[in-house]
Amino acid sequence: MRVLGVDPGLTRCGVGVVEGVAGRPLTMLGVGVVRTPVDADLSHRLLAVEQGLEQWLDEHRPEFVAVERVFSQHNVRTVMGTAQASAVAMLCAARRGIPVALHTPSEVKAAVTGSGRAEKAQVGAMVTRLLRLSAPPKPADAADALALAICHIWRAPAQNRLQQAVARHTVNATKGRTA
Amino acid sequence: MRVLGVDPGLTRCGVGVVEGVAGRPLTMLGVGVVRTPVDADLSHRLLAVEQGLEQWLDEHRPEFVAVERVFSQHNVRTVMGTAQASAVAMLCAARRGIPVALHTPSEVKAAVTGSGRAEKAQVGAMVTRLLRLSAPPKPADAADALALAICHIWRAPAQNRLQQAVARHTVNATKGRTA
Repeated sequence: MRVLGVDPGLTRCGVGVVEGVAGRPLTMLGVGVVRTPVDADLSHRLLAVEQGLEQWLDEHRPEFVAVERVFSQHNVRTVMGTAQASAVAMLCAARRGIPVALHTPSEVKAAVTGSGRAEKAQVGAMVTRLLRLSAPPKPADAADALALAICHIWRAPAQNRLQQAVARHTVNATKGRTA
Repeated sequence: MRVLGVDPGLTRCGVGVVEGVAGRPLTMLGVGVVRTPVDADLSHRLLAVEQGLEQWLDEHRPEFVAVERVFSQHNVRTVMGTAQASAVAMLCAARRGIPVALHTPSEVKAAVTGSGRAEKAQVGAMVTRLLRLSAPPKPADAADALALAICHIWRAPAQNRLQQAVARHTVNATKGRTA
């Protein structure tokens, strides 16, 4: 399973590609940041995010895109830009028919550190260990994108099993009715 | 000057095309709503908004796109969707090299009714009168999109004059230095 994690942002949009399955060592295929100029027009910043993400999608052809779910925070101005950058990421994936999963920051932290309230440094340290890197990826947005991809790989089996269970239940219920 | 106004939203994204110049009667070239299913995946809703807006851009080839500037409101869930739909609108315009202008709801209300705190019905009534329509466009999102386009046409001359003045001042300042 190859996953592109996206930590959305206008100034720095973190991107990280991880391949693997739950229960096996994971491999980092790429990590980086799409940056846009702070003084540029908002529409041009969104276009630059799109162009940057398209390059990552072209190069790595992920099967899933995991995007951080944006919540309203204290800084309303920042959260708007984050929501808009996340929209661009979801749009790029949907256009290619790639499924998009949203994970909350606490889900991601809990997945990689065991605690939904872990500090940034702890997330960076665990990403470094889990992907067997020589140093934590910088900036933090890049490390967060990798953590999102890892979270998705580890959470996906449970979701798949749930979906399978629901599908089986539906089949059995249908059988019950037709019997 | 042909302007596409966009009142962004996921469930209903209002669109309206107005042509004209300040001080002359305006003409409505089209009005409508791009809708996306409430129960669809967010990434697919954004894709549907993109596809809908692309059709409007293809058909009307506007010179400007005017989008409502999104602020944080009481309903955080709604404002996120609005911010994300507005990102799609800005992105579609930027991709085509069409300039995007953002206008606040109170700027739009003040432009068409004279008061930044006008009610929805008053905006609808003025849009109907200014575009010489037989009835107010429905739903309100469609009327708001037309109001955005009108606002842009009427505000633009002042902005252009300001930009011209700044340009002249810069030229004179440069002359002063070289003299």
